[in-house]
Amino acid sequence: MVTARSADTRREPQQDRSRATRQRLLSAAVACLAELGWTGTTVAVVAERAGVSRGAAQHHFPTREDLVTGAIEHMSEVRAAEIAGAQPALPTGPRRTEAVLNVLADLYGGPLFRAALQLWMAAATDEALRAQVAPLEARLGREAHGMAVELLGADESRPGVREMVQATLDLTRGLGLAALLRDDSARRTRVLAEWASTLDTVLPPPS
Amino acid sequence: MVTARSADTRREPQQDRSRATRQRLLSAAVACLAELGWTGTTVAVVAERAGVSRGAAQHHFPTREDLVTGAIEHMSEVRAAEIAGAQPALPTGPRRTEAVLNVLADLYGGPLFRAALQLWMAAATDEALRAQVAPLEARLGREAHGMAVELLGADESRPGVREMVQATLDLTRGLGLAALLRDDSARRTRVLAEWASTLDTVLPPPS
Repeated sequence: MVTARSADTRREPQQDRSRATRQRLLSAAVACLAELGWTGTTVAVVAERAGVSRGAAQHHFPTREDLVTGAIEHMSEVRAAEIAGAQPALPTGPRRTEAVLNVLADLYGGPLFRAALQLWMAAATDEALRAQVAPLEARLGREAHGMAVELLGADESRPGVREMVQATLDLTRGLGLAALLRDDSARRTRVLAEWASTLDTVLPPPS
Repeated sequence: MVTARSADTRREPQQDRSRATRQRLLSAAVACLAELGWTGTTVAVVAERAGVSRGAAQHHFPTREDLVTGAIEHMSEVRAAEIAGAQPALPTGPRRTEAVLNVLADLYGGPLFRAALQLWMAAATDEALRAQVAPLEARLGREAHGMAVELLGADESRPGVREMVQATLDLTRGLGLAALLRDDSARRTRVLAEWASTLDTVLPPPS
């Protein structure tokens, strides 16, 4: 009994450490991709930024492709969980649509979007990378769509509603693109306010 | 007189050849950027693709930055002229808005958009390149806006109209992004049809 328990306590901190190392690598990979692009994001560079030995990094992620796709996937899950957690704090009533649009636009506004975009662009010029990245990109797109449907309270069984939700996500991604090389926040605010009032006009209210 | 005239005729074909060389380089630079990304697009690679000596390429474009920004700028002008030329062929009446949206979405659908996107992404991670590229990106954005206003016959003096035109361009850029790693044409058609009917509802008809 005593022996088993000490083995357990020994194993647990080690698992914790391993998980913490993994998290640091995933987080550093997103930061590197956003700042340096695909070419500059090697396992060695990410390991150094994470304060992890190159050997340990390669133990967790044998290739740069594994590391980087794993990072975008994991950080997107973290972000989705944050959005779900913040949902109760969103206003109801006339300001809700605009608040929801800002949440969606934020999804395509920060380092995670920049990192993902660097990865998609690299995949656009590299067939092997594309084979690994395209399914992830498609899945994240579906998940963002589900999130938008829920936050907007959209009833997709009504004609045209699905397309308007998709258009909303395409619009917010386009806004993310426009903010890549400059501060576009003032224009973004005006566009989202106008789009919110349009959505409130064309989408039937949630039943 | 005779001497002057023969000097003229000698000079002209040489100017023509020089212009043709330049055009080939600009066109090859866009193709390289779209296919290989910024890292793969060196003056040497572009020169080889254009069938031009490296020395001649460097005579026209001393640096890769000059070549690539020059290429995006020039090819965008060519595209804008094509769109202006095709304008009389656009339908009037109820199908016009959708036809215009397809023209705008095509603007962000082909190799030129992919090439520009590769350049913007490289500029996002490189401050010196960004200083050269951001003004070009901003100018092309303004020109696209002007094109959209004209094609849609939008009266921007009315409240909200400017923002809906901007939203339309953000949407079409977002659609361009979504088509980067897969064939998204069926979804694009549905989204644009719905967006057209929304614009026809919320935009006042051109006076």
